[in-house]
Amino acid sequence: MALTITELLEAGPDPMPFDILRAAYVELHVRDLAASRRFYVDLLGLVVSAETDDALYLRGWEERVHHSIVLRQADQAAAARLGFRMRADADLDGLAHVLEGLGCTVWWVDGALPEMGRALRARDPFGFPLEFFHEIGLLDSQLQRYDLQRGAPIMRIDHFNLHSPAMEETFAFWQHLGFRCSEYISTDGEPEDERLAGAWLFRKPGVHDVALTLGRGPRLHHVGVWVPEPGGVLRTCDQLAAAGAGAAIERGPGRHGVSNAFFVYLRDPDGHRIELYTCDYYTGDPDHQPLRWSVADPRCRSFWGAVAPDSWYEESTELLGPDGRLIPTAAANLDERRARTQVMA
Amino acid sequence: MALTITELLEAGPDPMPFDILRAAYVELHVRDLAASRRFYVDLLGLVVSAETDDALYLRGWEERVHHSIVLRQADQAAAARLGFRMRADADLDGLAHVLEGLGCTVWWVDGALPEMGRALRARDPFGFPLEFFHEIGLLDSQLQRYDLQRGAPIMRIDHFNLHSPAMEETFAFWQHLGFRCSEYISTDGEPEDERLAGAWLFRKPGVHDVALTLGRGPRLHHVGVWVPEPGGVLRTCDQLAAAGAGAAIERGPGRHGVSNAFFVYLRDPDGHRIELYTCDYYTGDPDHQPLRWSVADPRCRSFWGAVAPDSWYEESTELLGPDGRLIPTAAANLDERRARTQVMA
Amino acid sequence: MALTITELLEAGPDPMPFDILRAAYVELHVRDLAASRRFYVDLLGLVVSAETDDALYLRGWEERVHHSIVLRQADQAAAARLGFRMRADADLDGLAHVLEGLGCTVWWVDGALPEMGRALRARDPFGFPLEFFHEIGLLDSQLQRYDLQRGAPIMRIDHFNLHSPAMEETFAFWQHLGFRCSEYISTDGEPEDERLAGAWLFRKPGVHDVALTLGRGPRLHHVGVWVPEPGGVLRTCDQLAAAGAGAAIERGPGRHGVSNAFFVYLRDPDGHRIELYTCDYYTGDPDHQPLRWSVADPRCRSFWGAVAPDSWYEESTELLGPDGRLIPTAAANLDERRARTQVMA
Amino acid sequence: MALTITELLEAGPDPMPFDILRAAYVELHVRDLAASRRFYVDLLGLVVSAETDDALYLRGWEERVHHSIVLRQADQAAAARLGFRMRADADLDGLAHVLEGLGCTVWWVDGALPEMGRALRARDPFGFPLEFFHEIGLLDSQLQRYDLQRGAPIMRIDHFNLHSPAMEETFAFWQHLGFRCSEYISTDGEPEDERLAGAWLFRKPGVHDVALTLGRGPRLHHVGVWVPEPGGVLRTCDQLAAAGAGAAIERGPGRHGVSNAFFVYLRDPDGHRIELYTCDYYTGDPDHQPLRWSVADPRCRSFWGAVAPDSWYEESTELLGPDGRLIPTAAANLDERRARTQVMA
Repeated sequence: MALTITELLEAGPDPMPFDILRAAYVELHVRDLAASRRFYVDLLGLVVSAETDDALYLRGWEERVHHSIVLRQADQAAAARLGFRMRADADLDGLAHVLEGLGCTVWWVDGALPEMGRALRARDPFGFPLEFFHEIGLLDSQLQRYDLQRGAPIMRIDHFNLHSPAMEETFAFWQHLGFRCSEYISTDGEPEDERLAGAWLFRKPGVHDVALTLGRGPRLHHVGVWVPEPGGVLRTCDQLAAAGAGAAIERGPGRHGVSNAFFVYLRDPDGHRIELYTCDYYTGDPDHQPLRWSVADPRCRSFWGAVAPDSWYEESTELLGPDGRLIPTAAANLDERRARTQVMA
Repeated sequence: MALTITELLEAGPDPMPFDILRAAYVELHVRDLAASRRFYVDLLGLVVSAETDDALYLRGWEERVHHSIVLRQADQAAAARLGFRMRADADLDGLAHVLEGLGCTVWWVDGALPEMGRALRARDPFGFPLEFFHEIGLLDSQLQRYDLQRGAPIMRIDHFNLHSPAMEETFAFWQHLGFRCSEYISTDGEPEDERLAGAWLFRKPGVHDVALTLGRGPRLHHVGVWVPEPGGVLRTCDQLAAAGAGAAIERGPGRHGVSNAFFVYLRDPDGHRIELYTCDYYTGDPDHQPLRWSVADPRCRSFWGAVAPDSWYEESTELLGPDGRLIPTAAANLDERRARTQVMA
Repeated sequence: MALTITELLEAGPDPMPFDILRAAYVELHVRDLAASRRFYVDLLGLVVSAETDDALYLRGWEERVHHSIVLRQADQAAAARLGFRMRADADLDGLAHVLEGLGCTVWWVDGALPEMGRALRARDPFGFPLEFFHEIGLLDSQLQRYDLQRGAPIMRIDHFNLHSPAMEETFAFWQHLGFRCSEYISTDGEPEDERLAGAWLFRKPGVHDVALTLGRGPRLHHVGVWVPEPGGVLRTCDQLAAAGAGAAIERGPGRHGVSNAFFVYLRDPDGHRIELYTCDYYTGDPDHQPLRWSVADPRCRSFWGAVAPDSWYEESTELLGPDGRLIPTAAANLDERRARTQVMA
Repeated sequence: MALTITELLEAGPDPMPFDILRAAYVELHVRDLAASRRFYVDLLGLVVSAETDDALYLRGWEERVHHSIVLRQADQAAAARLGFRMRADADLDGLAHVLEGLGCTVWWVDGALPEMGRALRARDPFGFPLEFFHEIGLLDSQLQRYDLQRGAPIMRIDHFNLHSPAMEETFAFWQHLGFRCSEYISTDGEPEDERLAGAWLFRKPGVHDVALTLGRGPRLHHVGVWVPEPGGVLRTCDQLAAAGAGAAIERGPGRHGVSNAFFVYLRDPDGHRIELYTCDYYTGDPDHQPLRWSVADPRCRSFWGAVAPDSWYEESTELLGPDGRLIPTAAANLDERRARTQVMA
C-alpha cells in the first residue's frame, strides 16, 4: 500500500552517506545520427565534445564536463540511460548497497563511455535505467563565446522528467536517495485519498533534477536543459521555424505555474522531447517547504492558460533495458477522471 | 463578379485628393464599464484621458491624441465605430464625395465626442461603421513615464482586423481610399480561381491599418495595439495570470508569419479582442510589393506552429448600425475546404 | 542673422511639390575593405547584396532596396554621400530647382551605382554631399531568415546624424525641403538668445531621418540603423566582445532621453560611427509638436546618467567633396560654456 | 607572509564539520529611513516583511526567509552585519570553535532580530562584522505575484563584495570556512610575485557568496541581489530615471567578464551600493576549477569595455564594530601600478 502524500512529505529525504550532485547526462538512441546532429548541433547549437561513427557527445555552453547529452545510432529510438553525478567516486560503493536495498539490480562498468571512469548502473524497481558516476573528463567552458552561440543558447542539462504509473512508490524511492521535493500536484480529496499527479525532486538547489508525472511508464517524458532568459527561447523558435524545422516545436513558449519555468518543448527527429527551461529559483535552504498545487488549478501546468497538445500528454520516450530491449510499460492505475489532464494513459 | 487577386493587385491603390493618415480610434460598447476599466486601465495600463459616468476615453503611452480607445456603457457588447484620422479637416469634403461614389451612406457629426470637431461618419457597403476626422485635442505623451507603466506597455493603437465574407470587394473598397497592400493570403489555385483569405492594408508605413480576414461578417475580429518589444508581451501575460485574469489570454504569445508580429490576443470582459502587437516593419517606399502567402503554408498564421483555439476563428465583435442595432452578418461564400483553417463561418 | 528657435519652429516645414521619403543610403570610404567586411558582415551581420573588388553593397534584414550602406576602398576614410529616396523619379526635377534656390551646387549622375538610375547630387551650403534618387533595384527581404541573423540584427537604415556649426541655418535648410522637427535641445536663455544645440528632423513618421548636432562641421557624427529590440543590442555587444572586437563599442548600451532610443554606438575599423537604435515612436500626425529639451537636463542625452566618452563628442567622420578631397570644417561659433557637454569643438 | 595564489588554490577549501549555506542577509544603517523606504520599496520593489519605527525588514520576491535586507535608522551610514545562514543550528557550536581558532572575536545573541533565534556573531581578523545563524521565520514566496512586481524585480540576495587590503589572508580565511573559489583576478607576474586583485568565493553553487576586491578595507563594496533577466535590469533603469531617481544609477548596465554577470550598480540614499545581478552559472561540481583573469585584460571587469566611474572604485560602505563605532580602514599595501584600475586606495 502506497503512502499518502502527507506521509511521504513527513517522511522526507533520507540522510545519506553519499552525495548525488545532480542530473548529469542522458544517452539517447537515435535512428539517424546525421539528422540528430543537424537538430542538436546545427539548430540548437550544443557544443560537440567528441564524435565517432556512431555516437555524438554534446555539452552545453557553460558546461565543463565532457558530455551531458550522448546520441547513439541505433535501430530504435529510446533512452538508454539517465546519468547522475556523485560528489566523490568513493560514494559509489555505499550507494550500490543502498540501491540494492531499495530493490534495484546494480552492476558496474568502467570506461564504458569516453572520458568516464567507473560507473554504477542500476535498473530501479520501476524499470528506469540509471547510472551514477563521479569520474568524467573536463573541458573548457564556452560560456562567453557569444560569437558562436545560437538560439537560446543551451547552458547546461537541468533535469529529467519521468512518467510513472506508481507515483508514491517512485517518489519514495527518490526520497530514499536523498532527493527533496520542491513542488507537487495533488489530485485533491481527503488526505487519505489524495494522490500525487506530479512531483518535482531536487538535489542541486533548484526546482528539480527529477520530476515525476503520473502516466504510462516507465518512460522519459523529457530532458530539461537550462537557458539564460526568455528572450533566447523566443529566438530559438524563430530560428527553428526559419530553418524549416518549426515542426519540432511541440508546446509553448509559455510559463508553467509549477516551477515558474518559462519553457518551450521541442521534439527531436526521433520524437525525444527537450524542454528549454529558464526562470528557476533557489531551493537550497533545508527548511524549504514543498509547494502544493491542485490538479484542478488551471495555472498549475499553464500559467497563461494555453492548452498543451495531446501529444505532450501521450507521447514519450521509451527506455532501454540492460538486454537492449525496450522496457515494458504499464498504464497508470489511478482514477484518471480525478486527475484530469495531468493523467496520461 | 469580384476581381481576382491579380487584377486587384494590378489595380493598386487609387491616388486620392485626400490623405487618410491611419487607424486612429475605436469605440467599443461594454456591458460593465467598471469591469472594462479594471481590464484596460488597472491590468493593461492604458492612460485615462477623460472619464464620464458612461464612458472612458483611453490612450496609449506615447499617444498625444485625446483617445484611441473609447469604452461606452451599453446594453449589448458591440463595436460602434472605427475611426480614421485625416491629414486635414478640408480633406473630409472630398472624401465624403468619394465614399458616396463607393456606395456608402454618409453623414456628418460635430463634437459628438469630447475633444473632437466635425467628423464624417459612414456605413460602408459591407456594413462597417466608419468615421473620418481630423480635429482632436492633444495631450502630453507619457512615453517616458516608465515608473507608471505596466505590462507591455501599450504605446498606441495600430490597426483594425475585420471579418468579411466578400474579401475581394472589401479589398477593392479600401484600395479606392488609397490603402496599399503589404501582405495577403491566397487560397491557391489557378489565377482565375485564386481568392483572398486575408489581406493587410496600410496608410501609415507599417504592415497595416486595416486587415481583412475571410469569414462571417461584417464583424471586428480585433483591435491591434502596438507594444515596444516581445519581453513586454510576456510580462503582460504574467501580470494578467497573477492578477487572476489569465482567462483573458486567448491565443499566444507567438509569432505570426504574416506581418512578422510577435503577438498575444486578449479578450476583454465583453469578449472584444485586443492584439498586443510588436515587430512590425517599414512599408513606406512606393514600390513595396505585397507579400503572398499560401493558405496551406503552416507558418502563415503561426510561424512556430501553435494551433489557434477555435474561439479565435469563430468569435468576433459585432458591429453597431446607425440605428443602434447590431448589423446583420453573412457567412463567407467561399468553398471553405480550400481555405482551410483560415476560413471562418 | 540666423532665426531664433521660436521663429524656426513657427516657420515650420515648407510644403513641397515633391516627396523625400527617407534617409536611404550612405557611401563610406574605408581603407581596408576586408577589415570593413569583417565588421559589417561577419560581426554585425548585414546582408551582402553585391560585391566588387573595391566596393561592398549591404542592406538590412528587412530591406528590399539593393543597398543602404555602401563601403568603398579608398586611401582615406570619409563619408562620400548621404542618399535620400524620393517617392517618384519625376520629383527630382522640381527638387533640383529648389536645391539651387537654397544655394546648393547640383549635378546629375545616371547609373553611378549598381542597380540605381539617375540621381541628383548636391553639395549643400554647409558642405554636406547629398544625393536624391528614386530608382533602385529591389531584392527579397530577409526579415524572417532568423536562422541566418546575428546580434541585433540590423533591420534597416534609419537616420544620419550631422555635426553643424551653424545649427539654425542648417535646420532652416532641411525645413525648406519639407522635414519636420520631432525634438530639439535648446541652450536655454531668453527666447531671443536661445540657440539650438541639437535637432531631430524627419520625413518618414519616426523621430528622425536627419539629426543635427552643434559642433565642428560639416561632419557625419553617425549613421543610425534600426534594430527590433533592446535584447538584440545587448547580444550584439556580447558577440562583439566575444569575437575580440569589443573595442568597437564606444558608448552604451543605454537609453537616450531625446528620441527615447535604446542605443549602442559602435566604431567601424575606420572610426565611422554606427548607432544601433530601437524604441522609436510614431510622429506622422501633422500636428505632432516638437519636444523641447534643455541642454542642462542630464536626462536629455543619457536618460540613465552614464557619461559619454570624450571621443563621442570629439570624433566624427569627415566628408568628401565632389573633387575627392575632404571638405574643410569649421568650429562651432556658439559660446560653448552655455551649451555644456552637448557642444563639440 | 601571505601565501601565493598558487599556494592558496592548492590549499583549497577546508572540509568543515558544519555547512554554511549562503550569504543570507545584511543590516544597513541609514540616516533617513523614509528615504530608504522610498528607494528600496517604492522604486526597487522589495517586499516588506515587517516594519517598526526604526527598522525595515525586506526580502526578495522569491525569498521565504523573513528578511535579506534590514534597514535601520541611525546617525551614520554603515553596514552593521553580514549574515550567513547555516544548514543546522547545531552547526553553530563547531563553527564558533573554528572562528576563534582563525582569530575571530565571537559572541552569541538570541532573538536579536525579529523572527530569528540564536546567532553567532564574530569580528573577523580583518574587521568584518559577521553573523551566522540557522533559525529564521518563513513567509510565503511572492515569486508569481507578477502583478505587484516592479522593475527587475529583485528575487533574492546573492552575495557580498568586500574590500580588503590583505587579499591573500582574507581569501585563506574564507577557504578555512569551506568557501571555494570560482574566479579570481591576478596581478600577473612570476608565480611567487603574483597577487590577488579580486576573488569570487562561494558556498551555494553559483559564482559567489563573498567576493573580495583589493582596496582600502575592511569595507563593503556592494550587496549583490539576483534578478531573473537582463531585460528587467533595463526596465529598472528606465523606472528609476522616470521617477527622478536616475542619479542612483552609478555604473552600467553592462556585462562583467568575471562572473558573466549582466549588472547595474545602484547607490541608495546613503551611498550603500546594490548590484542587480543576473546570468550566473552553476559551480556545484567538486572539480569545478577557478577561472583566472589577468588584471590587464580589459574584458575582465567590463566585457564590453565601458569604463567604471571613479566612485565605483573609491567609495564603499564602512563597517560598524561591536561598540557601534566605524571600524578603522587601511589602504591596500600592494604596488598599485601593477594592479591597474582594479586596485583601490
